Amino acid sequence: MRTIKAFGTTAATEDLKPIDIVRREVGKNDIKIDITYCGVCHSDIHTARNEWKNSKYPVVPGHEIIGRVVEVGNGVKKFKEGDLVGVGCLVDSCHHCPPCNNHLEQFCENGATFTYNSHDKYIKGQQTYGGYSTDVVVDEQFVLRIPNNIDPSAAAPLLCAGITTWSPLRHWKVKKGDKVGVIGLGGLGHMGVKFANALGAKVVMITTSPDKAKDAKALGAHEVLISKNKEDMAAHKNSFDFILNTIPVGHEMDPYIALLKIDATMVLVGAVENLKPFHGGGIIGGRKRIAGSLIGGIKETQEMLDFCGDYNIVSDIELINIQDINNAYERVINSDVKYRFVIDMKSLKD
Amino acid sequence: MRTIKAFGTTAATEDLKPIDIVRREVGKNDIKIDITYCGVCHSDIHTARNEWKNSKYPVVPGHEIIGRVVEVGNGVKKFKEGDLVGVGCLVDSCHHCPPCNNHLEQFCENGATFTYNSHDKYIKGQQTYGGYSTDVVVDEQFVLRIPNNIDPSAAAPLLCAGITTWSPLRHWKVKKGDKVGVIGLGGLGHMGVKFANALGAKVVMITTSPDKAKDAKALGAHEVLISKNKEDMAAHKNSFDFILNTIPVGHEMDPYIALLKIDATMVLVGAVENLKPFHGGGIIGGRKRIAGSLIGGIKETQEMLDFCGDYNIVSDIELINIQDINNAYERVINSDVKYRFVIDMKSLKD
Repeated sequence: MRTIKAFGTTAATEDLKPIDIVRREVGKNDIKIDITYCGVCHSDIHTARNEWKNSKYPVVPGHEIIGRVVEVGNGVKKFKEGDLVGVGCLVDSCHHCPPCNNHLEQFCENGATFTYNSHDKYIKGQQTYGGYSTDVVVDEQFVLRIPNNIDPSAAAPLLCAGITTWSPLRHWKVKKGDKVGVIGLGGLGHMGVKFANALGAKVVMITTSPDKAKDAKALGAHEVLISKNKEDMAAHKNSFDFILNTIPVGHEMDPYIALLKIDATMVLVGAVENLKPFHGGGIIGGRKRIAGSLIGGIKETQEMLDFCGDYNIVSDIELINIQDINNAYERVINSDVKYRFVIDMKSLKD
Repeated sequence: MRTIKAFGTTAATEDLKPIDIVRREVGKNDIKIDITYCGVCHSDIHTARNEWKNSKYPVVPGHEIIGRVVEVGNGVKKFKEGDLVGVGCLVDSCHHCPPCNNHLEQFCENGATFTYNSHDKYIKGQQTYGGYSTDVVVDEQFVLRIPNNIDPSAAAPLLCAGITTWSPLRHWKVKKGDKVGVIGLGGLGHMGVKFANALGAKVVMITTSPDKAKDAKALGAHEVLISKNKEDMAAHKNSFDFILNTIPVGHEMDPYIALLKIDATMVLVGAVENLKPFHGGGIIGGRKRIAGSLIGGIKETQEMLDFCGDYNIVSDIELINIQDINNAYERVINSDVKYRFVIDMKSLKD
């Protein structure tokens, strides 16, 4: 057990500040990672502020972790000192239930261990602490390889925003020529646009904000559909093969359901709260589907990262120092970031 | 053009009564069917009473039609005089759009012609009239063959209640050993139980009414789950491969979504109205799906009927005379029928 520096909060109403936390020593199958960058996800804020009513304090957020391997256990096979690696939302699972056997560790029936605010199997009475810290020790099965040709700071958000949007596009087999809508241009949406474009789809950014049109096109959208414009929405009715819905709050779904083709699917990845009532006739007529998706398994996350290496895809980020985190949280809440904050973790050592 | 006897209503607030309607003569590809039985669907009531705000009067309901071929056009190939046939919810479509080419005439992009209350292509200024009438003339492509070994009166509801429940079970590939929930034990639900059982699934009837348990088991349910019992619902959490939701009104979906396994689907076939808000987290955690389904195409309806012949499946019905229709409507509304009224159309000739 070692005491290390971190940034966290001791109560829902407190700002984040420097705190000391305890990490385990490197075990047989573990990797110790010196953290160089950590992305800032909206979930970090929800947890720091106990908005999901399940936070255990202190909370040390951060599940978009990039770093260098500095130590490996004697049973580690896939990684060696000096490797550029990443850790996403998951650091462990039971390894033997049907979802785990199916590379769906995020749905582990015995409870996946999330990177922060989960029960820590190794240190009694402690929850897991995330990437707003100098280092982290993780079972090698939950460590990802980061391609060397992409900017590691901009790769950090791939570990959550990336896989969250990649997984449904792959699961629902989005392919060349499909008409794909991405609703909402934020941290998730901007990755959805990049991936859908790279997969060869005709990408339509669906947004309430006409002023996002230029940015959406620069990111890879072929067209922008302003959801407040009823005539334009009607013109696109029954025409989408797939819609990725990244809206992070409850919302009306009927106008988006109307956009789907027969047998087409809209996947929700953002709204972990009550949706507004939708009309059953909207999915009955057209045999349409509404589905959910939650991050992705470790195997699929590695496939996504490899794809990002091959296609040179990273997130659009704004690099900050850890001392700016509380201000950054306010800006995330106000959607005032293009499109993801990433913390330069050098600043924690200052 | 011929004037024939029918039973219909001239206004939303009027009872059904004997009226005269006009039918077209038998054209080249047409079949004239002497109607012997006609099922009573809740949609008949919605339309008679203009509850979907699209009724054109007079309304002659009835889209679960069984009868004998009495005349065929000179281009008709598949049927001959004397054949036992059926007509369901559809009597025509455009025949050339992608859904029509895919045997999904119910989703015809140019507007399917429904059996009643649709624009009549043949008689200017008139809507289509359903099966509460002595005969009907239908393009042979929309006529179904009824197996000779099943009771024709009890086969009538297969044409709507049957295909409505069969189609989603087949589309979502329900197979032997799957755990299938059927929510709601009415006209649709009782067919869902029979079909899921015949397909080899482990069928769980999900109902609010403990007093339906015995009947559900007689119909083929292996188990009955009372949805008001929170402990039982919790015991079945994350365990269903598929749920067929026949609830005909808006309702809470969260308790049913919780029953689905990872990647499993709940299909709505009844609630053509606003659902209550559901929590996005319920489908995001578990990558679950909510889908809709609307009757089925003609090819699939024939497959269902052939299956019913092979497995000797029909609906459980109560046979009535047409003169009892208004009383029957009240009983349908009060769920006081096991499980479908069928009109003995001889009574119209009385």
